[in-house]
Amino acid sequence: MNPTHALSAQWKKQFLTSEEEITPYLKDWSEWKGNLKSNGVFLPRSTKEISQFLKYCYTHHLKVVPSGGRTGLCGGAIASSGELILSLEKMNHILEIDPYTPSVTVEAGVINQKLQEKLAPHFLEWTVDLPARGSCQVGGNLATNAGGIQALNFGMAKRTVLGLEVVLADGTILEMGCGLEKNNTGPDLMNLFLGSEGIFGVITKATLKLQPLVQKSSLYLLLCNSVEDALSVLKTVRNEFGLRVLAFEFSCKHSKELVSQYFEVPSFFKESGEYFIILKTAQDLEKQTLFEEYLAEKAPIVSSLKANSAKEEASFWMIRENVTESLKNKGMVHKQDVTLKISDLAGFILEWKSLLKKDFNFSDTESFVFGHVGDGNLHLNYCIAKDYIATKDKIDQAVYAMVARYQGSISAEHGIGLLKKQHLSKTRSEEEIKLIQKLKNILDSRNILNPGKVLPDSI
Amino acid sequence: MNPTHALSAQWKKQFLTSEEEITPYLKDWSEWKGNLKSNGVFLPRSTKEISQFLKYCYTHHLKVVPSGGRTGLCGGAIASSGELILSLEKMNHILEIDPYTPSVTVEAGVINQKLQEKLAPHFLEWTVDLPARGSCQVGGNLATNAGGIQALNFGMAKRTVLGLEVVLADGTILEMGCGLEKNNTGPDLMNLFLGSEGIFGVITKATLKLQPLVQKSSLYLLLCNSVEDALSVLKTVRNEFGLRVLAFEFSCKHSKELVSQYFEVPSFFKESGEYFIILKTAQDLEKQTLFEEYLAEKAPIVSSLKANSAKEEASFWMIRENVTESLKNKGMVHKQDVTLKISDLAGFILEWKSLLKKDFNFSDTESFVFGHVGDGNLHLNYCIAKDYIATKDKIDQAVYAMVARYQGSISAEHGIGLLKKQHLSKTRSEEEIKLIQKLKNILDSRNILNPGKVLPDSI
Repeated sequence: MNPTHALSAQWKKQFLTSEEEITPYLKDWSEWKGNLKSNGVFLPRSTKEISQFLKYCYTHHLKVVPSGGRTGLCGGAIASSGELILSLEKMNHILEIDPYTPSVTVEAGVINQKLQEKLAPHFLEWTVDLPARGSCQVGGNLATNAGGIQALNFGMAKRTVLGLEVVLADGTILEMGCGLEKNNTGPDLMNLFLGSEGIFGVITKATLKLQPLVQKSSLYLLLCNSVEDALSVLKTVRNEFGLRVLAFEFSCKHSKELVSQYFEVPSFFKESGEYFIILKTAQDLEKQTLFEEYLAEKAPIVSSLKANSAKEEASFWMIRENVTESLKNKGMVHKQDVTLKISDLAGFILEWKSLLKKDFNFSDTESFVFGHVGDGNLHLNYCIAKDYIATKDKIDQAVYAMVARYQGSISAEHGIGLLKKQHLSKTRSEEEIKLIQKLKNILDSRNILNPGKVLPDSI
Repeated sequence: MNPTHALSAQWKKQFLTSEEEITPYLKDWSEWKGNLKSNGVFLPRSTKEISQFLKYCYTHHLKVVPSGGRTGLCGGAIASSGELILSLEKMNHILEIDPYTPSVTVEAGVINQKLQEKLAPHFLEWTVDLPARGSCQVGGNLATNAGGIQALNFGMAKRTVLGLEVVLADGTILEMGCGLEKNNTGPDLMNLFLGSEGIFGVITKATLKLQPLVQKSSLYLLLCNSVEDALSVLKTVRNEFGLRVLAFEFSCKHSKELVSQYFEVPSFFKESGEYFIILKTAQDLEKQTLFEEYLAEKAPIVSSLKANSAKEEASFWMIRENVTESLKNKGMVHKQDVTLKISDLAGFILEWKSLLKKDFNFSDTESFVFGHVGDGNLHLNYCIAKDYIATKDKIDQAVYAMVARYQGSISAEHGIGLLKKQHLSKTRSEEEIKLIQKLKNILDSRNILNPGKVLPDSI
């Protein structure tokens, strides 16, 4: 019997083989245009089943793509050449909430939003929150080291992991970290798997550090003329006034104008300015009184508003959150997700605008920048009217080279997957890439786990 | 020329060879009783010099102990059989403070306290703060993944690292992380070195995430009858009242009585109770009013006090911070540093007390427990009147076996080094230890870096 038939015979309904059943699992949310093909989808219900399955695949040299909610944007979960797909969706149990640490232990297939809903009555949250929350799974969030708005305060997903269970390519089960922050017993192995996009092992279970839910917050909208000015406000509100900054997001004025074309957004300010900043702080009336005086009198801004109702808060967020939706009306849009040192942001944006004008003949309404400016993470968007693939590739070459020159990151939150692997050396050194390859060799010497992802083809 | 003479000839005053010069570098703060011997101490001034030195050592199979402030308690920085010592003390420059991210880039030899002093005028701090602050170095803090009181809030040292430069055994320089939190470009390699106690590479430079200095705080002293009661208060103050808890430390009543014998400590309470809890919160008058009502009326405590002056604050802290100093009057004291799941703490302490009474004939004033109860980290102390080494070994066997049964950690903050390596398997699984050994083989195949540390002798 061929190995795939044998799997089908062994796992019966847990192993999907019809084209109709397989199709939904082939693709993630990325703009991948290549082949899509898988010989079967495995739906395990336990770590032990995953271990058995991988041991079999390892023995028979069958390639496997681990699959969470498939909301990734870089093709990390795509099956393109017959790989088997290992979907964690049935491993969706929340195992234990510890309100003291506070922490939660979950299986990898738990949907992010379902976890948050279970935690809220305990006044707790997992700080990894992102627009894909309704579909993405905790295991995928960890394997791709997800970010989101709260990364500004609490860091990326990897910062929250206290314990991790992983199955290696040959079926070995590794339990790491004991669920304890304070566990200094030799080298950390958990972080090898966080952000490795499944090439080193399959995450099956995790214990996650939680934070108390912030119960009261305030939202400000600031109009600024430069990124430097915005960052000066960030520094002052956080370091000098000691207010807890929960979000510091921005959109360029063109992004705001674009959103206004498709959604009902107030004009907000009589004055004009280059950037709209959304600042969310934890409520602290004493400190806020002083901060609001500073905003009115001394801050290097054009103007500011404070939301007085949930409706006003929602209208502020539209400027930032509806850009992607609005862009869908502009035809083919290419996206990049980069990080620069905060001190380089202003210079980078100027150089980026000038590059687009000079080398790509872009007008002001063909490129848009918005994102998590508080942690240096820019989402760059390009409306490409013709020669989409060739133009996109040229933009990638030019902009990633610029990012490399600034010693920034070509992928802030989205990962590498299939789409950025040929650019990996723009952010990682040759020595690092060699070491990642050596680690791959000891963790998965037969290269069965998520083959062709992350590492560039040439090495 | 023999290789050590050649090094001496090449590096001149940067390579110490006389016994008098070498002696201060041989030992850390641990209770190591074995041999001490080194053939020379190298004092590099740059990463390049370290790379040259290690390349030479690697070629000539010379073993090297990386050395920071040598304040470790597990023998991680001990030279016992002629190893060369690589001291980072001359690499003590603070390179860049970025008040926006906020972050700081430092060389590995910067003294922790000197860094904090430089950051304070910027209203910033590095959250790794520990009693050895005046001597310990940032590189050592990272190589041992240091903890301290603020780990409760911000996690251990490894959580703060945004960028890391490491020199591998063969002289290869690895630069990792770009100093950016948001950098999802494949597997994380930095964390391999954080907490690895120098067996994988030498940390030479780091970019560290900072936090705004908390400018106003309040200190409470609570008297409780059980650990469960104390933890219930922690849960309520943090999750329900939403107050930011900056410290949650405890001492048993015997520790408090011991301190009272050697220091002038007020009696504080008319009532008696089993545990004294020190609770530090960020100031938030609105939330504190509600919390203080809860303390007075509903909290499961015997009594509570709030410090009204710096002097009163200092008197509260004496109960916790002067235990180690007081213990020095009790003769030979053995220390353990373990972590349990918060929900297991109360049960563990009861079983521990009963074990000491039953198997070791300990009276109430021969064992003391205090520590970071808020994150499950207990410092266990034993006054051993006779047969110190044999008794200490028996206590280690018995208590670490108990910790293993509870799936806790045999080393919360202090690391493994020489002193705990034979107990590593109590917290790390066989599969993990095998993988650490495989990593050691690819990172340092000649085993020149900190040989004999962390990994047990048998593998």
